[in-house]
Formats: sequence, structure tokens, C-alpha cells
Amino acid sequence: MSTPRIPVLAVVGVGLIGGSFAAALRRAGQVGRVLGVGRDPKSVERARELGLIDEAVSAAEAAQRADLVMLAAPVGSLGGLLARMRAHLKPGIVLTDAGSTKAEVAQVARQALGERIGCFVPGHPIAGAERTGPGAADADLYRDRNVVLCPLPENTPQAIEQVRLAWQDCGARLLEMDAELHDRMLASVSHIPHFLAAVYMAQVAGEPDAERRLGLAGSGFRDFTRIAAGSPEMWRDIFLSNRSAMQAELAAVRAVLDQAEQALAAGDGAALLDLLQRASRTRRDWRLGSTES
Amino acid sequence: MSTPRIPVLAVVGVGLIGGSFAAALRRAGQVGRVLGVGRDPKSVERARELGLIDEAVSAAEAAQRADLVMLAAPVGSLGGLLARMRAHLKPGIVLTDAGSTKAEVAQVARQALGERIGCFVPGHPIAGAERTGPGAADADLYRDRNVVLCPLPENTPQAIEQVRLAWQDCGARLLEMDAELHDRMLASVSHIPHFLAAVYMAQVAGEPDAERRLGLAGSGFRDFTRIAAGSPEMWRDIFLSNRSAMQAELAAVRAVLDQAEQALAAGDGAALLDLLQRASRTRRDWRLGSTES
Repeated sequence: MSTPRIPVLAVVGVGLIGGSFAAALRRAGQVGRVLGVGRDPKSVERARELGLIDEAVSAAEAAQRADLVMLAAPVGSLGGLLARMRAHLKPGIVLTDAGSTKAEVAQVARQALGERIGCFVPGHPIAGAERTGPGAADADLYRDRNVVLCPLPENTPQAIEQVRLAWQDCGARLLEMDAELHDRMLASVSHIPHFLAAVYMAQVAGEPDAERRLGLAGSGFRDFTRIAAGSPEMWRDIFLSNRSAMQAELAAVRAVLDQAEQALAAGDGAALLDLLQRASRTRRDWRLGSTES
Repeated sequence: MSTPRIPVLAVVGVGLIGGSFAAALRRAGQVGRVLGVGRDPKSVERARELGLIDEAVSAAEAAQRADLVMLAAPVGSLGGLLARMRAHLKPGIVLTDAGSTKAEVAQVARQALGERIGCFVPGHPIAGAERTGPGAADADLYRDRNVVLCPLPENTPQAIEQVRLAWQDCGARLLEMDAELHDRMLASVSHIPHFLAAVYMAQVAGEPDAERRLGLAGSGFRDFTRIAAGSPEMWRDIFLSNRSAMQAELAAVRAVLDQAEQALAAGDGAALLDLLQRASRTRRDWRLGSTES
């Protein structure tokens, strides 16, 4: 048998994101052994039972043994993890992550890894996360989904290529951009929708007659608010991590909201129709996973 | 054979709403003949081919022959329709509608029908409308969905009961409230989400790099913006028809938006987490079709 391209893969975080990455690479025949690192022993054991990982190890051991490490842990825990791994990093090891913001991740990684920063290639798979845990892992999660890499100046072409090939084996489509651009784009199309859905949902929830209102809500409400059910801790971290881009986007949304509200107050049907047509046309033309690449 | 409860049903508008109403009542064995009224001859013919209606007639003829009339036409066309029907209304006829706002509908109907207003019972089935046209009609569309009736002081108990029984035959759950309360509730849980989704979508669409942004959008964006693809004309009419309730609700949403933005600007993670937790808890506890009554 030929040696797989990634003799030893480690996933730090064995839930939906890390578990699906491991499952996809294993199915593609590109990994030898899969190590799993996790804070919750039950989740790690479940991941092993499901065959997502072969062995549970510490972060330090993963650093010693792995050829490629996927850091699929909350952005807030990344600095501590990398600091614990730094002294143990195997020569030639490549690390990547799956965090939703990239400028702060790059900064935290640079601080934690110091002169070893070149082995860390920041990345972000744009794939759904309604379900969580090892049981939700799916070898097809990344198929036809966009994955953004935000390489650092210190990354070698070989390190970037390792990460790129791994995502290609998962069936993903790759894009590259710098961390600041990524964070502005994601503020616009991901973080702002979550922010607005949560604000709206909190407003309805806070009304004295919330129960009666919610009893009358239909399928439009259902879809518009689905993302408001997401993990409060995760989204707090994302909002704070991407604060300045969020603020810029919120100002832009408010400007359009002001116009729309003025049109409503003035009974200006033509202005409302114009706004609704632009929105409707753009949304009808959009398809999930399409990209200008 | 016993006489069906509704010997002659007429649906004005033979698309999703009217067609589904006719299909559900026919399947329940409660209608004899079904008359269809529509502006587009092709849609009417298609509804006949599909067996949703038995015969295409004019609005005046529907008024002369029907026992129950469902007005499933745009709110903006209701006044003209009722004015054309007024001189022809069969004794004992009952009319109802399916419009998304009720105060303006009641006012328009009162103006058009004059002293005959007692036969018109305003109603609103809260059921999805992504698909349109006779081909989308579905005898199960209203099953377990809420239908709000907003009876007028002039309605006889018999007229209200006719409409109530028809919706029960469709499998719907009935609620009653006055038109002003209905419009406030629906502003909150239906019209505001559509307004915000359209505002957000128009903002993204208007950015110089909209194409790049949209290429990076994922499943959260997909669900949050789905309703922004709705009919611009229909939503313009709904917004204008329900303007004052919309403005009151928008002010309440803005107050929460202001707080959330201040928390973001201040890096106040505790305040953001509190808001996100309230939103998440409320959304997780909610189920489509649940109602307090």
C-alpha cells in the first residue's frame, strides 16, 4: 500500500467541523491515522466509537505526532491551545483552523507561536453548523462549499498547498483572500444576519404579549429567525472578534433602513417598490455555493 | 346523496390561496360546485384542468350564484371586486377574504358593500406563499395552520359560523381578534421580518463588491433572506396597508438594535451574551403552528 498523503492527521475539537474534516479525508483515502483532541472525554470517546478518530491524545501529543492539524475549537481557546503545542511541534507540521473570523485568529496565532508562525495557515470553511457534536459529523459537509484560506506572509508555499489539497479532498471550493477582506465579507453576509436576527428575536421576546405574537408566527418568521437559535457564546465571541467590520456594516444597513422607513412614513410606494425589487431580484438570482472565485 | 354544506363555492383568485381553499373543501366533501374568478384566463383554465374549479365565471356571476365566496385576490383589488359584486349578491351569501392586513380590508369592504357589509367576514390564513399559481394549490396547505378571523360588528353569528366551519374543514386552527390587534401582531411577526430582510438584502445588493460578498454567503444567509425574494408588489401593498403598526414595531426593533450596537461598540460581552441568550432561548422554544389559545 502507498503511504497516504497525510500519514497522521489530528483534529482538535471532534464535533461537527473537526469530525467532518476527518471523515471526509478518511473517505478520500488521504489519511493514515487520525488523532483526536477534545475537552469533553465523552465527545472524544463518541468520536472514536464512530470511527472519526483512531485515538484520543493531548494537544501536546498531537503536535508531536501529526503531519496536519485541524484546529476546530472555539476561537477563544485557540491562543491557549497553540501555546501548549508550540514546544512540541514536529518539524514540517502544518496547522490550520476553521474559525469564523481571521484577523484576530492570525494575531492570536502569531503571539502564541512566535517564530513558528509559518506552519499555521488560517482558514474558514463556510458550512452550516445547526447541528453539533461528533454525531453530526458528515463526510459530505464540505462538498461544494466555499473554504476561504487567508495565508500569512510567513507561510511557505508547501504549507499552503498541504491545506489546500486537504480541503480539495473534502470536495470544497477554495478561495484565498487576506484576513481583513475575509472579515469584512463575512461580517456582511454572515455576522450581520445573525446580529439582526438576534436583535429582532430579542425584541419580540421582550414584548409583554410575546406569547400571543409567537403563536401567530408562520414560515417566514421561522426561516428569518432560524439563526437566532445559534450558540450565544459562539456568536458573542464572533461579534467581538469582528467588531470593527461589524460596526461598518451595521452603519451601512442602518442607512438603507433609514431610507426604507422614510419611504414608509411618507407612504412612498414607488420608493418601497424600488427597494423591494432590488432585494427580490438579488435574492432570486443568488444560489448557495455560487462564487465568482 | 345529501346536499353538501356549501352547495356553490366561489374562489376569486385561483392561485395558491384560493385553489388550496377549494381543494381542501372539495376533498372534505363539503362543496357541490366550485366557481372560479380570475384576471388571467390561462390561470383560470389551468385551475379548471387541475379540478380546483368546475367553471370560470365573472365576479358578478359568482355573487349571483355562490353560497360562500373566498376573495383570494390582492388587497389592492378588493374594493373594485366587491363594488362589482354588490348589486348581484345572492340573499344569504357569505364572503370572506385571505388578505394579510385586516383593518384596511374592513374599511375598503365597508365602503364597497355599504349596508350589505354584514355578509363579509374578514379573515387571514397564516400559511406559506413561496410558490404561486394554481399548480401550487394543495389541499393540505392549511392543515394545522392558524387562521385569524376578524369579525365585524355587522356580521351575523351565522355568517361567522359559515366561515369558521369552512376553515375547520380545511384542517386549520381558528383564532378570533379585532382587526387592529391582528394588524399589530402580524406587523411584529410577519411584516417586520419581511421589511428587515428586504432592507438587508438591498444593502448587500447595493455594495460595489456585492457579487463577491454573495459568493461567500452560506446557509444562514439563505434562510435569513428567503423572504426577501417575495413579490415586491404584494409586500409594498402590505407595508403601506399596515403602515402605522409597522412604524410602531420598527421603533421597538430600533430600540433593541441601538442597545445591541452600543454593547458591541463598548465590547460589552455580557450585554451581548444576555441578548443572544434571550433570542436563542425564545427561538428554540418556538414551534411553527403553536398558539396560546
